Amino acid sequence: MENFTFCSPTEFVFGRDTEKEVGQLCCKHGASRVLIIYGGGSVVRSGLLQRVEQSLTTAGLSYETLGGVKPNPEDGLVREGIRKIQNMSASAPVFLLAVGGGSVIDTAKAIACGACYDGDFWDFYIGKAKIQRALPVGVVLTIPAAGSEGSGNSVITNTATGQKISLRSPEHLRPVFSIMNPELTYTLPPYQTASGICDMMVHIFERYFTNTPETNITDHLAEGVLRSIIEQAPLVMQHPQDYGARANIMWAGMLAHNGLCGTGHVEDWASHFMEHELSALYGVTHGAGLAVVFPAWLTVVSRSNPKKAVQLAVRVFDVPYEGRHEQEIIAEGIARLRHFWTSLGLPSNMRELGITDPDIDLLVHNLHETKGEPIGNYVRLDRILTREIYDHTR
Amino acid sequence: MENFTFCSPTEFVFGRDTEKEVGQLCCKHGASRVLIIYGGGSVVRSGLLQRVEQSLTTAGLSYETLGGVKPNPEDGLVREGIRKIQNMSASAPVFLLAVGGGSVIDTAKAIACGACYDGDFWDFYIGKAKIQRALPVGVVLTIPAAGSEGSGNSVITNTATGQKISLRSPEHLRPVFSIMNPELTYTLPPYQTASGICDMMVHIFERYFTNTPETNITDHLAEGVLRSIIEQAPLVMQHPQDYGARANIMWAGMLAHNGLCGTGHVEDWASHFMEHELSALYGVTHGAGLAVVFPAWLTVVSRSNPKKAVQLAVRVFDVPYEGRHEQEIIAEGIARLRHFWTSLGLPSNMRELGITDPDIDLLVHNLHETKGEPIGNYVRLDRILTREIYDHTR
Repeated sequence: MENFTFCSPTEFVFGRDTEKEVGQLCCKHGASRVLIIYGGGSVVRSGLLQRVEQSLTTAGLSYETLGGVKPNPEDGLVREGIRKIQNMSASAPVFLLAVGGGSVIDTAKAIACGACYDGDFWDFYIGKAKIQRALPVGVVLTIPAAGSEGSGNSVITNTATGQKISLRSPEHLRPVFSIMNPELTYTLPPYQTASGICDMMVHIFERYFTNTPETNITDHLAEGVLRSIIEQAPLVMQHPQDYGARANIMWAGMLAHNGLCGTGHVEDWASHFMEHELSALYGVTHGAGLAVVFPAWLTVVSRSNPKKAVQLAVRVFDVPYEGRHEQEIIAEGIARLRHFWTSLGLPSNMRELGITDPDIDLLVHNLHETKGEPIGNYVRLDRILTREIYDHTR
Repeated sequence: MENFTFCSPTEFVFGRDTEKEVGQLCCKHGASRVLIIYGGGSVVRSGLLQRVEQSLTTAGLSYETLGGVKPNPEDGLVREGIRKIQNMSASAPVFLLAVGGGSVIDTAKAIACGACYDGDFWDFYIGKAKIQRALPVGVVLTIPAAGSEGSGNSVITNTATGQKISLRSPEHLRPVFSIMNPELTYTLPPYQTASGICDMMVHIFERYFTNTPETNITDHLAEGVLRSIIEQAPLVMQHPQDYGARANIMWAGMLAHNGLCGTGHVEDWASHFMEHELSALYGVTHGAGLAVVFPAWLTVVSRSNPKKAVQLAVRVFDVPYEGRHEQEIIAEGIARLRHFWTSLGLPSNMRELGITDPDIDLLVHNLHETKGEPIGNYVRLDRILTREIYDHTR
């Protein structure tokens, strides 16, 4: 186990009707003026935005709104948010309230650090500047997937450069509170629910696949969260209004990405980097992209580094192991993982993802242009290996 | 799942040599004058206290010390600490630094809230007053067991009344930081290591045994931490200087009690209440007392409420279940749990705990005098049932 620090100061307020507490929670965390960030029409149509506004008004808070965040959120809206804050009366600092899923929260985080910086916010994402200060962010979560409600991460796409980059700053970007009401996820389209489930599972895999020794406790935590997701996912797909299943999936999504499953690990993240190129180029849903990339990644890396893939197959997918060769166990584990994801309606290759003729040269080029070479830690991947992984996704 | 809030703001600094950062961490968390609380001679003999003092001095901090905390910590030293703080120059608030295990941390927490209150600190423990404010507490952990390094709990014994009471105030009593270096636990006596392991397991059981439905994710988390403890404990007993095993056990002890394994549960805590009477009356080591009380509790409550005991037996102790009656599965699960604890050198009954003729009338009387009737939630226990459980411990 490597030395680590871990701190998860976000106040999670979980359960039925908890969005009604949003005004009080903003006050508790020092808000006076609020900028509400949200995405498309569903937050409006469902009446959630109105309920949130009502709660803020009742708590005596003034607010403005910034809608229009899209999946794979872009730099343009971040800059619009920063300008909006600069134009809001300067009597007190602005509190950012993200009402939505990962894209909305990530946009709020980008605005939060960008608004406290003289240069362009993108400097933080390309490593040109380090965050010194950020505005506080609160969350009303509507899509369990990205885990952004409990993490210090934010992923933004720069439309001019085509780069999709993840920024990590646990000290500055963890939300101060996150309201998590599973009922708000009842109306999610099945494909989005399934993509979210895949995303949270891969958040665990990125930490689980490590060469760090002595990770017994975090391995068991990760396996426990994975088993829970695998048990609850079919319930959620069959009965979208099953409160318990929705609640378990929602909490699992937070646990998958707040760092707890990776304390003391050297983490990997190659699958995420490879998927980011896919969604930057083809605009696919992140979780669905991962359902295609991750099994290909696991197939290739397990050839030279089988250990954790065997453990996953046996402990999470109950693959029988006695008297069998480890590559056979791994193949069955990957088959079961693929089968689980396709049973949720997720794609298993580029074609099913809607990409009939992927430009693999360009994907490989963009990947290493952004992330250098090699990438990943469980197996260090050069261009030859990342090309092979992309080839496997056809 | 019940609605819940969860917030664990403690900064955990985990790994080799991390105690060297104590001065810096105190400064980061606003300290200027520090009161170091510690227990017996081992912290002095090992040189740890000196290293901590050195780090504070290097960081420019002034400090005083208060030693002498004993296992099952008492009110007397808490009052001494509060007086000491009142006598320390009042130029800046005091920062409390606990260097030790649960007893030392719990004493520091009692001083932390008592020093900010005009009445007697014991008012908080008997529910006569509610904490409004507390001094910050930092921790250098030397005994993984109580989980106090990550919890908002404190257990103190009042020598005048003979009461041993647990106070819970997550908002005010969670440490601001906890330094956790597994190497500091190498020299723990085997009996203390084993008692700590039992204590952390029962912290999980108190949350695991619930009638709350829809707890799939927390059940899996709890089972994962339990499996890890069961796998790592024998390594720690056989090789006290096995860094990885010590590290896994140390982190498991925190996870067992920071609330994560019980989010959304109605918890039980009857076993802890029953053990507290045992250690208040006979001065036994808390974890060893639990090794005696818990299996007796589980035997009695599983008769009328078998569900979770079956799940524990099957999922954690790998008890075969096909074609068997549930009471048979439970009996084998309890036998395996007892066997595991005795294999660590823990007692399985009062006699082995050194109590040849327990005064069960008095134990039952004290228990319900302090805690009312009934106690517990998984099964509500009246005097008849708690007597039966104590009888089972003979």
